[in-house]
Amino acid sequence: MRYEFEHVLPADIESRSFAIIEEELTRMGRHLKEDEAPVIMRAIHTTADFDYADNLVFSPDAVRLGREALRAGARIVTDTRMALAGINKKRLEALGGEALCFMGDADVALAAKKRGSTRAAASMEKAARLYGNQAGDEKPLIFAIGNAPTALVSLYELIGKGALAPALIIAAPVGFVNVVPAKEQILSLKNVPYIVARGRKGGSGVAAAICNALLYTI
Amino acid sequence: MRYEFEHVLPADIESRSFAIIEEELTRMGRHLKEDEAPVIMRAIHTTADFDYADNLVFSPDAVRLGREALRAGARIVTDTRMALAGINKKRLEALGGEALCFMGDADVALAAKKRGSTRAAASMEKAARLYGNQAGDEKPLIFAIGNAPTALVSLYELIGKGALAPALIIAAPVGFVNVVPAKEQILSLKNVPYIVARGRKGGSGVAAAICNALLYTI
Repeated sequence: MRYEFEHVLPADIESRSFAIIEEELTRMGRHLKEDEAPVIMRAIHTTADFDYADNLVFSPDAVRLGREALRAGARIVTDTRMALAGINKKRLEALGGEALCFMGDADVALAAKKRGSTRAAASMEKAARLYGNQAGDEKPLIFAIGNAPTALVSLYELIGKGALAPALIIAAPVGFVNVVPAKEQILSLKNVPYIVARGRKGGSGVAAAICNALLYTI
Repeated sequence: MRYEFEHVLPADIESRSFAIIEEELTRMGRHLKEDEAPVIMRAIHTTADFDYADNLVFSPDAVRLGREALRAGARIVTDTRMALAGINKKRLEALGGEALCFMGDADVALAAKKRGSTRAAASMEKAARLYGNQAGDEKPLIFAIGNAPTALVSLYELIGKGALAPALIIAAPVGFVNVVPAKEQILSLKNVPYIVARGRKGGSGVAAAICNALLYTI
């Protein structure tokens, strides 16, 4: 048996993939907003799941504000080592930014154990302590959450008590327990830009893809 | 507005998630084979995408053979740093195994450039050179491919010419260009155990989840 391969140069695979995604969206009758299209298409590119054409919810101007934050040398804090691995650090660092994940830190594990919370929640508290409103830090802060709904709950609480004012929250945990309400809480925020993968779907790959979509269109 | 959160202890979130997945599969009338169930359910857990109940194709005894390889201290070679980050190295190393990704290696980049191939293909050739049939290495070799169809094409060729005899191929690249035929080629292999995410879907998270499903059920 022979298999039908397309002859595409390595350097052209990504643009060919995006052309196919665009074709299929058109065939589905989906017309994406110009600013949101690169983000949605990269999430589809990462998952081959066209549900992301419907799932991704953007607060007004989220894409522009996210890009501005990155241009200003944003710190991206994520809740998984996989998302950390997936974010294009070269691009990020060229803009003066950095990507951080505190999930493996001993103090985070200890804090979570002490309080019976999760390491993800303790990670967000550590981010607030280091770079939040009290820290006198001038760099914008982006959260890219790909796994833990408890990270989102923690962010919601920290924002509520004025400890954090993120430049953008990318809310893309995946899962079956408390993922949906944790995302809905983020969607209820009035003064914080967000990109939310509504529903159960998401993941570290999606969170990283959204960061990269913003980085690649600067 | 109030959001409905379930009260689940951090340590119980995963088992509660699996119970929900099982319920929904039952409601869908899907009955998974006993050996395949933990792998399929963990892929769904990682993506919230029930398509994996239909997508994942196992060669006979693939799960048992994969576990045996891991118990014997297998090396897992992957094509992405994200999958590398997602594999539970603690469990793997406790069995005497290790996880490797050559994608960032300078010699791999050079070899790919020289031949106009991809770094993923060159990574597989490096794995064959280091740990293949000519290398006199006794550890079983598992490939966990989450991104590049060219990695699968390269594995197919290396197996064809007798340079490699993997204990298991986890074939889960995601995408739109040559992903489907590259997976079909792996499905045509007669003497190599495989777990293939048939179709376009997959990803680093899925590849890592399949590794972890095997590790967690040893």
